[in-house]
Amino acid sequence: MSSPRRGPPRAALLAIGDEVLRGEILNANAAFLSERLFELGLDLREHRTVSDDPLAIRAALVQLRTEADVIIATGGLGPTEDDRTVDVVCDLLGLDAETHAPSLEAMKQRFSTHGFELTPNNLRQVRVPVGAEAFQNAAGIAPGFRVDLGGGAQGFFCPGVPREMEKLFVDAIRPRLAVLAAEADLKPPLVRTWHVYGMGESHIDHRLAGILGQTEGATLHFRTAFPENHVKLVLRDHDQERAQANLLRIETELRKRIGPGIYGIDGETFPQAVGKALLAQEATLSIAESCTGGMAGEVLTQEPGSSKYFVGAYVVYTNEMKEKALGVKSETLANFGAVSEPCAREMAEGVKRVTGSALGLSITGVAGPDGGSPEKPVGTVCMACAGPGTTRTATKLFSGDRARIRKAAAFFALDMARRYFDTRRR
Amino acid sequence: MSSPRRGPPRAALLAIGDEVLRGEILNANAAFLSERLFELGLDLREHRTVSDDPLAIRAALVQLRTEADVIIATGGLGPTEDDRTVDVVCDLLGLDAETHAPSLEAMKQRFSTHGFELTPNNLRQVRVPVGAEAFQNAAGIAPGFRVDLGGGAQGFFCPGVPREMEKLFVDAIRPRLAVLAAEADLKPPLVRTWHVYGMGESHIDHRLAGILGQTEGATLHFRTAFPENHVKLVLRDHDQERAQANLLRIETELRKRIGPGIYGIDGETFPQAVGKALLAQEATLSIAESCTGGMAGEVLTQEPGSSKYFVGAYVVYTNEMKEKALGVKSETLANFGAVSEPCAREMAEGVKRVTGSALGLSITGVAGPDGGSPEKPVGTVCMACAGPGTTRTATKLFSGDRARIRKAAAFFALDMARRYFDTRRR
Repeated sequence: MSSPRRGPPRAALLAIGDEVLRGEILNANAAFLSERLFELGLDLREHRTVSDDPLAIRAALVQLRTEADVIIATGGLGPTEDDRTVDVVCDLLGLDAETHAPSLEAMKQRFSTHGFELTPNNLRQVRVPVGAEAFQNAAGIAPGFRVDLGGGAQGFFCPGVPREMEKLFVDAIRPRLAVLAAEADLKPPLVRTWHVYGMGESHIDHRLAGILGQTEGATLHFRTAFPENHVKLVLRDHDQERAQANLLRIETELRKRIGPGIYGIDGETFPQAVGKALLAQEATLSIAESCTGGMAGEVLTQEPGSSKYFVGAYVVYTNEMKEKALGVKSETLANFGAVSEPCAREMAEGVKRVTGSALGLSITGVAGPDGGSPEKPVGTVCMACAGPGTTRTATKLFSGDRARIRKAAAFFALDMARRYFDTRRR
Repeated sequence: MSSPRRGPPRAALLAIGDEVLRGEILNANAAFLSERLFELGLDLREHRTVSDDPLAIRAALVQLRTEADVIIATGGLGPTEDDRTVDVVCDLLGLDAETHAPSLEAMKQRFSTHGFELTPNNLRQVRVPVGAEAFQNAAGIAPGFRVDLGGGAQGFFCPGVPREMEKLFVDAIRPRLAVLAAEADLKPPLVRTWHVYGMGESHIDHRLAGILGQTEGATLHFRTAFPENHVKLVLRDHDQERAQANLLRIETELRKRIGPGIYGIDGETFPQAVGKALLAQEATLSIAESCTGGMAGEVLTQEPGSSKYFVGAYVVYTNEMKEKALGVKSETLANFGAVSEPCAREMAEGVKRVTGSALGLSITGVAGPDGGSPEKPVGTVCMACAGPGTTRTATKLFSGDRARIRKAAAFFALDMARRYFDTRRR
């Protein structure tokens, strides 16, 4: 290939297909490809989705080849008349289409194994432009291909079916992009993500103001996955030792500024962090849920191996169940109501007692949209965590709709368990 | 506005944000907006995603305003320095930014209710370009706005957070697009969606082959929201009476072909359908969950008013809890294991007995990734529904990862309850 470029190759993604454009299918291919291009260090500029219309595909390729060095296009390689990608590429570049013999052979074999009949449509599917570099599709029929689009841009084309695209990307496209990245002298960036609970994005941003200083090649990125927030640091630096030192320095400062709201890094999930805190104390947990209907238990058991610390949950949706299953006193319900700290306390202590777990957690609140009152508006949730010694209680007013209030409550309660043994707790 | 256009207004979607471009967030907003623009009859040409870089946002707007009459942009309206949409629009159009007073007031009120501190960043979030038509954000802080982008194109800008965008779209953007559509003499199509449980997309597609015949302006669209499938019929016909007649005819045929897998139409949710079936029999339900950890209860209580039929759930994650709380016999566990129909039966009958509900549902299985065996591989789930008279049991082998298996199991069990009293059941 040509001499090393200045800066990272620019890339663009093009999804082709009415079903994506009409919103019937989420463009998950874009997420998959973007993450991998970012890891390779390519400079991804744009995702674009257009219809099956040949004019729309052509216009997109014509525009994108002036803006990107690498275009990865997905879709439009199926067997139907709607699938026009090969025709458009051939037309644009003045090439003929030809059958890719290995793909034809593989298709024939596959069809005869399954007793399918080969239709003329199927032959459309194994065509590639003459002169293109074809990649056999190990997970499907239509081959992928690479072709020079003119102006120094190259196009990689693959089917839109995610598992076919992913296999082709890993087997054929990624190795070729890695060569490009090496030619551009790119080092993969150093990346770390901190997961934060209990603080909004604007507050985290405020606390982290100026934290990067003049650090070489450092950028900070925020993402909200309610009720969690993720802060990602990307360090692009040819001096890997300096990058490591910068990571350490920034991490130390970041932990000082954010505090125990950080529950994990990189792949660590919130339920994992709760489990880790419980395992560290060899403590088991049981939960009494009312307005969350089982969500706290569901979240905690998303993690395999949660049976090591999670005993079970009582979803006591009615007052009768609260009394009968957990021993909440009828006077407590009569005097304070089901949404009260005294009731939350009795639920938490009750579930701890009946299950014999080390910690007992409880949630009782008004998730809405109905059931609110002036004293206890929609969003009012009382929670308690009973442990060996003391029972902690909390009342919060969460905002948002029913789904959001329930999620906020489930996470808040689980966080009480996570931090029960944490002496630094706020 | 100007005189009626020829043909439908052309539209384009622009998502702004590094987190979408880098694949950290799926662009679900594009799917939501596309479906609604399609229903309005607009001619959606393109989805595009660009980074937070002001030059990239500007270049996209400059290009799209020549290609579309309506651009809906999402993202870049947050409180951080990364959020540059307002600045770019102002710069492009030569406008100043100003504070949107009602949004500032709402933010202040909201912050004081929750005891949050107002940071300077937050003030960034309530700015709009001078002269823009601002839309207050009922689900968040940053207002949306409409502005003329030049060349006859208008831009609608809203936050990237889906529930904020959706609320703004429904309240402020859709009504304005409906006016545009009416001016272009577009009739809103007749749309009906059937929600199906228990059948894959390709099976539904197969059963519905040829169902539209030569019906004027009719198209059929499929969408999977695992484990549900939605089938949407769109009828574009200037003759509204004929469209109504065609809808009735197709609906009758479709219900014949799909059967009781259809649990609802249009906005009706799966937990609503379960609740409706229970209410029709004045039956209450309790649930005993193991591998789903509380998910079945959580799903059922997504619906407000579920306390009318849902009593509560026992999440019996350990064998000891199964015995102690629900009276599962130790011999049953010893002879058949926890993942067995005998255990599921005793769990369902046990939870019905201890809660006094009319129906008792149970779920016990191997959600994985560990814990599988040759006889009971990962994905094996036993379920039971105990009712007045007979207890029904089922064993299924669900595929996919832990999250998918749990979801499949929770829905399958709830569907057993939904159809317990249905004499047409498969």
